[in-house]
Amino acid sequence: MPDDRTATVGVLRVTEAASTRHDDRLAVEEPLEIRVAWTANGEAREKNISVTMRTPGDDFDLAAGFLMTEGLVREAGDIAVIRHWSSPNVVRVELRDGVRLDASKLDRHFYTTSSCGVCGKTSIDALRVAAEPLQSAPPLDRAFVHQLPAILERHQSAFRETGGLHGAAVIRRSGELLCIREDIGRHNAVDKAVGALFREDIAVSDAVLAVSSRAGFEIVQKTVMARIQVLATVGAPSTLAVDLARQFNLTLLGFVRDGRFNVYNGDVT
Amino acid sequence: MPDDRTATVGVLRVTEAASTRHDDRLAVEEPLEIRVAWTANGEAREKNISVTMRTPGDDFDLAAGFLMTEGLVREAGDIAVIRHWSSPNVVRVELRDGVRLDASKLDRHFYTTSSCGVCGKTSIDALRVAAEPLQSAPPLDRAFVHQLPAILERHQSAFRETGGLHGAAVIRRSGELLCIREDIGRHNAVDKAVGALFREDIAVSDAVLAVSSRAGFEIVQKTVMARIQVLATVGAPSTLAVDLARQFNLTLLGFVRDGRFNVYNGDVT
Repeated sequence: MPDDRTATVGVLRVTEAASTRHDDRLAVEEPLEIRVAWTANGEAREKNISVTMRTPGDDFDLAAGFLMTEGLVREAGDIAVIRHWSSPNVVRVELRDGVRLDASKLDRHFYTTSSCGVCGKTSIDALRVAAEPLQSAPPLDRAFVHQLPAILERHQSAFRETGGLHGAAVIRRSGELLCIREDIGRHNAVDKAVGALFREDIAVSDAVLAVSSRAGFEIVQKTVMARIQVLATVGAPSTLAVDLARQFNLTLLGFVRDGRFNVYNGDVT
Repeated sequence: MPDDRTATVGVLRVTEAASTRHDDRLAVEEPLEIRVAWTANGEAREKNISVTMRTPGDDFDLAAGFLMTEGLVREAGDIAVIRHWSSPNVVRVELRDGVRLDASKLDRHFYTTSSCGVCGKTSIDALRVAAEPLQSAPPLDRAFVHQLPAILERHQSAFRETGGLHGAAVIRRSGELLCIREDIGRHNAVDKAVGALFREDIAVSDAVLAVSSRAGFEIVQKTVMARIQVLATVGAPSTLAVDLARQFNLTLLGFVRDGRFNVYNGDVT
């Protein structure tokens, strides 16, 4: 059932027995900017209150749900109209006359965090400012890749206990584990693992970042910024993760588990 | 191996055959504020650049990795010292003399998003301002709960294709599916599902929010704000999710799969 939410990319599917070309369907990931327009003291106000990486579709529901669950609107009638605004990745919510957005509440309840710009293109451009494409990784040995899930599992002690933690490991091609960290947030697990090595000034360009989670835009961005040439994920990549990996020359492997994996970018022997 | 990363809570474990009391180990979730201090034109500057929900431990690695992967520092020597600052949930990174934080880069690359305050206590207090505790949910029928994973799976068409999407469904106790949405972001899936019903002014207080993912602070917060009395997750809850559910009278079920589930708060018959 193809729709806006999924897209097809060509991949190399590698098992212990064979490598075959396939079309793989991925979840689409694109940023959505939510803008709110309202009137205060007779003056028209407008504010960008959130950018979220989302799968396109049901964008008006997403914007309404976000405003409601953040306590910014109370009832359906608070919203006059929701529409796309100059881009399919921008939604503008116009509040009903007399409904005001409490700007102090925004300042109190919202905080800054890291992410991309307002569309796939802008994000990738914004990243390019900070990072050059990576050197091409030498072809990866498939037997090495097949070992990665076992290395992650062996060292994820807290996950085994709780079922609730993501793991990130930096592993040399020799099999040497340089660092592994766990966190309830998958971006945090990556930041902890690469941060530990960064603080010690340990070279990682020839290593592989293996993560127990999926690969979205931010995980790929962090891998590129850490100058690691290979990202291997137990879960699925998003469309934007694949685009970014190809643009920055990052070797990207997904679904690395159960004796198989997919190559979304890069070489495997 | 008990450590800071996990904590024990008492739960009722329900299978098709029996209900038994157990101690369950959960991943700890607490907010971390990252502050950066530097000198610009002879003037001391300091800025809170991020609050992230993380599992305590390796906080200095997390802060260093975050600054590096966001392009705010380039080499280990850019950082003079990292220390906890007045709270175990605040880390302060002091940059070396001559290393400046480019504030315009911060403004360009960081955006606002939703979350809590700076420690579990503050978060819960901040939420209380916006939301009263929920009415207690009538006891849930266990046979109904056992059906929830199948309802989610049956309708998660894009997940089946990609393995990369979270699902969120609002389901009446009669079994009627009110709304289901998928998204690459689990918070977005929830916002879309509750947002769709909010826009239509459909009452949900007697319904159950079932999600394919784990339960962290933000998913619980969104459920409370949507005034839904029951949250059932396929994955594990965090410590903060359980604390918040108990404080706001939300029935919270976790690991709802394979004919079993855990009750972290609320009543099941």
